[in-house]
Order: sequence, then C-alpha cells, then structure tokens
Amino acid sequence: MRNFSFYNPARIIFGRGVEEQTGEQVKKYGTKVLLHYGGGSVKRTGVLDKVKASLDAAGVSYIELGGVKPNPRLSLIREGIELCKREGVDFILAVGGGSTIDSSKGIAAGVLYDGDIWDLYLYPDRQPDKALPVGVVLTIPAAGSESSWASVVTNEDGWLKRDICAECLIPRFAIMNPEFTFTLPPYQTACGASDILAHMMERYFTQVDHVDFTDRLLEGAMRTVLNYAPVVVEQPENYDARAEIMWAGTLAHNSLLDTGREGDWASHEIEHELSGMYDIAHGAGLSIIFPAWMRYVWRDNPARFVQFAQRVFDVDLAQAETEAIVNEMLYRLESWYHRIGVPTRFSEAGLDDTKIEEMAKKCMINRQFTGHFRKLVEKDVVEIYRLAL
Amino acid sequence: MRNFSFYNPARIIFGRGVEEQTGEQVKKYGTKVLLHYGGGSVKRTGVLDKVKASLDAAGVSYIELGGVKPNPRLSLIREGIELCKREGVDFILAVGGGSTIDSSKGIAAGVLYDGDIWDLYLYPDRQPDKALPVGVVLTIPAAGSESSWASVVTNEDGWLKRDICAECLIPRFAIMNPEFTFTLPPYQTACGASDILAHMMERYFTQVDHVDFTDRLLEGAMRTVLNYAPVVVEQPENYDARAEIMWAGTLAHNSLLDTGREGDWASHEIEHELSGMYDIAHGAGLSIIFPAWMRYVWRDNPARFVQFAQRVFDVDLAQAETEAIVNEMLYRLESWYHRIGVPTRFSEAGLDDTKIEEMAKKCMINRQFTGHFRKLVEKDVVEIYRLAL
Repeated sequence: MRNFSFYNPARIIFGRGVEEQTGEQVKKYGTKVLLHYGGGSVKRTGVLDKVKASLDAAGVSYIELGGVKPNPRLSLIREGIELCKREGVDFILAVGGGSTIDSSKGIAAGVLYDGDIWDLYLYPDRQPDKALPVGVVLTIPAAGSESSWASVVTNEDGWLKRDICAECLIPRFAIMNPEFTFTLPPYQTACGASDILAHMMERYFTQVDHVDFTDRLLEGAMRTVLNYAPVVVEQPENYDARAEIMWAGTLAHNSLLDTGREGDWASHEIEHELSGMYDIAHGAGLSIIFPAWMRYVWRDNPARFVQFAQRVFDVDLAQAETEAIVNEMLYRLESWYHRIGVPTRFSEAGLDDTKIEEMAKKCMINRQFTGHFRKLVEKDVVEIYRLAL
Repeated sequence: MRNFSFYNPARIIFGRGVEEQTGEQVKKYGTKVLLHYGGGSVKRTGVLDKVKASLDAAGVSYIELGGVKPNPRLSLIREGIELCKREGVDFILAVGGGSTIDSSKGIAAGVLYDGDIWDLYLYPDRQPDKALPVGVVLTIPAAGSESSWASVVTNEDGWLKRDICAECLIPRFAIMNPEFTFTLPPYQTACGASDILAHMMERYFTQVDHVDFTDRLLEGAMRTVLNYAPVVVEQPENYDARAEIMWAGTLAHNSLLDTGREGDWASHEIEHELSGMYDIAHGAGLSIIFPAWMRYVWRDNPARFVQFAQRVFDVDLAQAETEAIVNEMLYRLESWYHRIGVPTRFSEAGLDDTKIEEMAKKCMINRQFTGHFRKLVEKDVVEIYRLAL
C-alpha cells in the first residue's frame, strides 16, 4: 500500500426533497450566486424552478448562465468568468450533471486566476490554488464531479479535452435527490452507469500491491452498478435503484477508492479523444475503449484480471485457466454493456477507422505516456483503437 | 434507502513517516497546543518524541497532559479543561488510541462549554455546537475516533459510560503511520480488530430496506478485517497487513458506511456496562456480547442474517436452511474470535452472573430502549447477558 492523503469536505445531502435545503446551504458561503446549467431539461422537469424557489426563500440573489453542452466548452467558461467578474459573483451553483459542474469549476477557478484559464488545463504543473466556492444540485449520476476535485473541459479551438485537479475545486455541498434522475432517458442513464463503472475500473486496475481493503470496496461498488444499472434503464422511476446508482456514482470518484493505490486512467484519456472528435457520449466511448484496453494489457498482471473476473463477475473456472477466465470476464462485461444499451465497438457507434492515427497523436499532446497499469505510447493507443473497431 | 447527510472533513495522512507532517498540520489551526496522551507506551516507543520534534520544527508551542486510561475518565477531562483555560490552549493534539482521542474531544468541547461537561454526555438532547480543533496521531487502530464525530467517556462517580456526538468534534486531521502499531501486543491488537468488526456489524444489522451499496461496502470491509486480523496478531511487523487494518478501522466509523441506513448499536450499549463494570477491554466485551445479541435477535430479520452469513462468511447451505445458516455463521464468527484470542463468553473472561441485573438496569438509565434492529428493554438486556455466560 502506498502512502496517501485523503481529504474530501464535500457535504452530501441526499434523498427526497433535499433540494429545499439549497438556499440555506448557499447562504453559508456566498451572497451573489451564478446559477449555471445546461439546456432545457432542468427547466422542463421543474428542477430549476425548485432551486430558484429555495434561493428566493433564503433571500439569496442570483444571476443565470445556461447553455452548458455535453463535453463542456472553454468558450462558455470564459464567458462565465467575465460575467462573474462584472457582476461581483461570489458563489457558483451548478444545476445539472458532470458537464455543468465541470464548467462551474472552470469558472470558479478562472474568476480568481490572473491569466487565461486554459493555461491551467493545458499544463499539468499549473493547477489552481484558489477558486470561488461551488455548490451542486445533481441531476445526472455519472461523472462524480459533485464531490471530486477535477474538471474536464473541451477547447473548441483544436477540440482538445483536458482536465484540472485541485482541492479548492471540491464542491462545498451536493444536493442529491434520486427523483431528479427519473426523467433521464434510458440511453443517458446507461451512459452514466458506464461512466461510473469506468471510474471504479480505472482505480481497480493498479500495479500497486496489497490494496485489499480498497479492492474489496471497489468490488462491492462495481457489483452494485452491475446489478442496478439494468434496473434503472428498465424502471426509470424505481427510487431505490436510482438511489443506489446515484450514491455509488459519487463515491466512485471522490478519491476514497483510490487511497493507497495508483489508478490507470489510460481508458479515460484514450476515450477523451473519441468523444472530443465525434461528440459521442463519454459513457458510450468508455464502453468501446475499456474492453479493448483490457485485451491489450491484461498479460501485464494476469492475477489482477483473474481476481476481477472472479470477485466481480463470479467467473468460476479453474484457477490455472487464466486466459479463459479473462475471456469469460470480457464476454460478461460486454454482454452487460449491450444489455444496458451502450456500444462496445466503433462500428456499433457508427464510427470508422479514418481518425485513429489523428486521435492517438492528440492523445499524446503534452504527455510522455498514458496510463499507469501499463505506460502506453502513441502506437499502443493506435492498437487499442484498432482492437475496438 | 433513507435520506441522509454525510460530511467528514477529517484529513487523513497515511503511511510511513507521515508523523513528520504533524507540526505543519497543527500550525494551520492553533498556536498553543495541549499534547494529550496515555501511559508510557507512546514514550517507550519513541512516538511522542517524534511528534514533539515535528512540533518543535514547526515552531509550535505545547504543554503536556498524560495519564489517559482505557475507558477514559471524566476526572482527567475536567482537569484538562481547567488546564487549557488557564494556559490559553487553542488546539488539542491527541497521541494515542480511541481513549486518548475521546478524552481530547471531551476537553475540546469542555473548554468552550459554559457549564459542566458531563451534562453533554448525560443528556442526548444537549450536544456541543462548538469545540477547540482536535488533531490526532494514531497509535491504536480500533475505536475509529480519529475521524469520527463521537467521544465516549466514563464517569467514575457511578461508573456510567456515555457519549457525545457532534460535527465540531471531528478531528481536523489524523496522522496514521501503520509502523506505529507494530508494538501493540497481540491481545490489544485483537481487541482492536474486534472493535473494528463490531463497528461494521452495528451498521450492517439494519431494518432499513434497499441499502445494497453500503451493504456491499460493509461486506468488503468486514472481509478485510476477518482476513487480516489473524495476520497482524501473528506477524506484528507486517506493514501491509497493519495498513489494511488501520485504514479499515477508520472507515468503519467515519459515518460513510451508515449513509442511508440506521445502525443498531445495542451491542455497544450493552457492552459499555460490561467494560464499565469490570474494566475489561471494549473489544473483548464486544466479542462476548455480539454473538449473544445475534442469537437473541436474528429471527427479527432472518434474511439479513442469511445475507451476512453467505456474503461475509461464505456459508453455502441451501437457502431454506435458515437456522442452520445462522448457526454456521455464529460458529465461524466465534471461531474467528478465538483464533485472534478474544473471549466469547463471560466465563472465558473470568466473569460470573452476579452483576447482570445491575448492568442491565444501568444500561437503561436515561433510555427507553437500546438498539434499532430490535428495540430492547431491560429484560432483553438481562437475557443477552445470560446467553453470553
């Protein structure tokens, strides 16, 4: 087990009706709020009105900035930064999913950064050390951004997708009512579950020895997602199943489950180029990339893949049948992706091989390698895209 | 799943050599420190000297108060409160295990409470709303107090053991070096593991439906303790095994694993009278009480006990054999207690039945019932003590 530091002060307020506490939570940190959200869904479903009612009841004043797109854009963040500076905003309230939260974090850091915010995304050695406080009303369980320290943003100028990570970006609170996820369409629900599972798998596939406790926690968390994702896809208004997925999605990404270990993250970085290039859903990109990554790297630590197959997918073949165990696990994983309705191949998503070299090249910009389970360079990334065709 | 709020801002700093960070952590919160500890072990092992060196290096001034006993006493807390007020202390640094940390929390709350600190322990409706900041250098993995919001204290006047719970009592940081636990004797190591397992079982045995995600996390955590407790008892200097137990002990009790559920806690409350009366180790009391409690209550929710038996102890009997499944689980649990060297009966701890009625009566002082899985009254508590003879 490696030395680690763990700190996550996000306050989770979870359950039916908790959105009524939004105003009183915001009031602890700010007086002038930027209410940041995406398209029409938070309006259509009435979530935005409920949040506004709570802010009004608490006497908190706010201005609005909508229009966040999936794979959130740098241009809107720049617009938000200007708006906040002009209006004297001191708190950002994100109402939505990961894209809205990541956009909010970008604005929060940008308001207090003396320079172009993209610098921080582009250079891993420059990370923000201060940001306006951010709060979240979560409507999409997927990215885990509601209690994470990360923000992932796409620069339309070159379609590069990059992230920042800093303690000051961890939201002060996350308001999480599973009922707010009832209206998510099945495909978006499935993409969210795929993203959550991927966050767990990225942490699970480590080369660090003796991480049994967090292995066990991750295995339990992954089984929860595997069990309940098909339920929420088929029964969108099943409160308890939505609650299981929603809470698992947060813990998947709040840094607890990688204490003492080193995650991989190659699949995420390889996927970012796919969703950056084609604007497909991140979760759908992950279900395409992850099995290909597994096929490419499993021989670097067969014991870890066997443990994963046995404990998470109940593969029960004789211990010596390593390759058969891994193949059976891959069959079960891909079957699960299909069951919830996400693709596992480029072809299933209507994509071809014409951009593979370009994506692999972009993936390596400002990086010497991607991934830690096995350090991958450009030609490896090309091979993984090819395995996913 | 129930509505919940989760907030735990304790910073965990974990691994070899992390005690060197103590001074710089303290410096963030205070200028005049009370260094609080127990008997001679932190001196003998050199831990106290290392902590002092770090405080000196950071230029932090401190005064000392040693002498914390297992099942920490109210009288020392009162002494500490007076000392802190007199000396203008603004930060309490606990160096030790649960008793020292709980004593520190009592002092921290008492310094800012305008009245007798015992009032807060005695009356559940009076809980502290402010306290001096507390930090921890942990040497005994057991109580989980290093990141919990609770403090358990014994009043020698009547030997009553009671607790307080408040957000303001959560330590600001916990310095956790598994090497500091190498010198723990096997019996104390085993009692710690028994306490950790009990914290998980108290949370596991709930009547709240649909808590699958936290069930899975708890099951993984319990398997970790069941697997590694015998290792650390037999190999006291096995760093990785000590690390697994130490980190599991913290998460067992930081409120994460009871999100959305209602724990039981009858076994703890029934045990508190046992260790209050006889001054035996809390962990040894728990290994006596828990199996008896299980025998007494399992029919109130057989399905939960079957799930526990199957998922945590791998009991593999036919599903319909409920009673046999529970009995087999109890056999395996008690065998595990014996393997690590803690008692499962009064008789094994050299105790008899002469105080049972008195303990049961004291357990119900200021309480209408104990436990939530099944609400127990005085006669039930007597029966559980008898089942444990």
